[in-house]
Amino acid sequence: MPHYRVLLAYDGTDFLGWQSQARGRTVQGALEEALALLSGETRIAVAAAGRTDSGVHALGQVVCFVLARHWEPEGLVRALNGTLPRDVRALVASLVAPDFHARRSALSKLYRYELDTAAIQLPTRRRYAAHAPFTLDRERVAAAAALFVGRHDFASLASAGSDVKTTERTVTRSHATFSGETLVYEVEADGFLRKMVRSMVGGLLAAGRGTVGVETLREALLARDRRTWPAPAPACGLCLVSVRYPGDDAR
Amino acid sequence: MPHYRVLLAYDGTDFLGWQSQARGRTVQGALEEALALLSGETRIAVAAAGRTDSGVHALGQVVCFVLARHWEPEGLVRALNGTLPRDVRALVASLVAPDFHARRSALSKLYRYELDTAAIQLPTRRRYAAHAPFTLDRERVAAAAALFVGRHDFASLASAGSDVKTTERTVTRSHATFSGETLVYEVEADGFLRKMVRSMVGGLLAAGRGTVGVETLREALLARDRRTWPAPAPACGLCLVSVRYPGDDAR
Repeated sequence: MPHYRVLLAYDGTDFLGWQSQARGRTVQGALEEALALLSGETRIAVAAAGRTDSGVHALGQVVCFVLARHWEPEGLVRALNGTLPRDVRALVASLVAPDFHARRSALSKLYRYELDTAAIQLPTRRRYAAHAPFTLDRERVAAAAALFVGRHDFASLASAGSDVKTTERTVTRSHATFSGETLVYEVEADGFLRKMVRSMVGGLLAAGRGTVGVETLREALLARDRRTWPAPAPACGLCLVSVRYPGDDAR
Repeated sequence: MPHYRVLLAYDGTDFLGWQSQARGRTVQGALEEALALLSGETRIAVAAAGRTDSGVHALGQVVCFVLARHWEPEGLVRALNGTLPRDVRALVASLVAPDFHARRSALSKLYRYELDTAAIQLPTRRRYAAHAPFTLDRERVAAAAALFVGRHDFASLASAGSDVKTTERTVTRSHATFSGETLVYEVEADGFLRKMVRSMVGGLLAAGRGTVGVETLREALLARDRRTWPAPAPACGLCLVSVRYPGDDAR
């Protein structure tokens, strides 16, 4: 049976996140429903590279699934976009080897977080950027971002209920820039714990405001205790930008 | 009694436009309601520089009104933002001379229109950009945009029911650029007829796709007959960016 990989974009505002739940609208639910409808199969299980939380967006989520009959990838994209709700779009589909798995095969994921620091946030930014009306010290924000680079135990930055074997992850990029009064934070790692990026941004914000020193943050990271870490930033500013796999072209 | 000028931004998606109506949510209605609530006055009439249509956004709408008692401009902004719905924000307030009128005193208004031409539009762009999945000839788009510059009778580009003395307007800027696959059109004029910018974009799109030649568009503009002009583009791509008044600093 043919295995498919699909690049997916969505506006997470009106979803309770990626993962199917007993009640409520999820991206996985919407996608599985669309696939069932267009394939006639009763149950198609879809796996995603990143199980994004409620309100988190995606420009480059990657999902995989198996269909009983063969579809031309372009036809599959068209059929999906004819069936999916308007806040989810399939961008590209391809046939993949049976051992491809959207999450397990991923080498790294890149997330972006946007945070508006102006006194008043523009209403057209509300869905896609968090708002924290504080003057941030850019050097301290940069110093806090640099704390994450390398292999660390990120237990302090994981939300409760993370069900993982290890809380160690390798961060290959952690970079904060400012575009006007907007903080744009990009972080790439081989994997992320639940709410890890939002916790990272919570740390940047605390450091930038000066409520927590960068050295204290470093100690809180080493403490591997989530009670020591600043609260996570809101979901709306977060977006899964891209996922890298072996054999993919370099970005 | 003190006269106020307020700079307003809104997400037009969930409004039936600026102007109050018997039924339905309007920006004017929301603002007048907020002013009544915070001032205790029963009826405050607000005028706006541009009476934006349903679904049109604003980054720099200008409104004016009179209050019975004096408010510090900064306190007025805070009070308004504590009372207005979240998709409307007051950005700046100032006291103005009694003869200031948001629309009549305006020298010019600048609108921006965004149109995504990629085959598939990203869901996070849906609220703030139109979508036309066509390859546009950039030279023809630029040539069509140049048609509007100067003083013209824009009757061909006005929607029915425009109640105006003259359909002549002076366009001082009309410039189309491409940011990736997004057409960004900026137009500044001393005034706009109803649906005029959206009709302009309809013309750019027709010229860019090649369904209407630039010379035919020029004739359609001269014809002063709206039946000769291509259909207006959707409201969601349009945004009132700024309004210029005598004595304001140059942008």
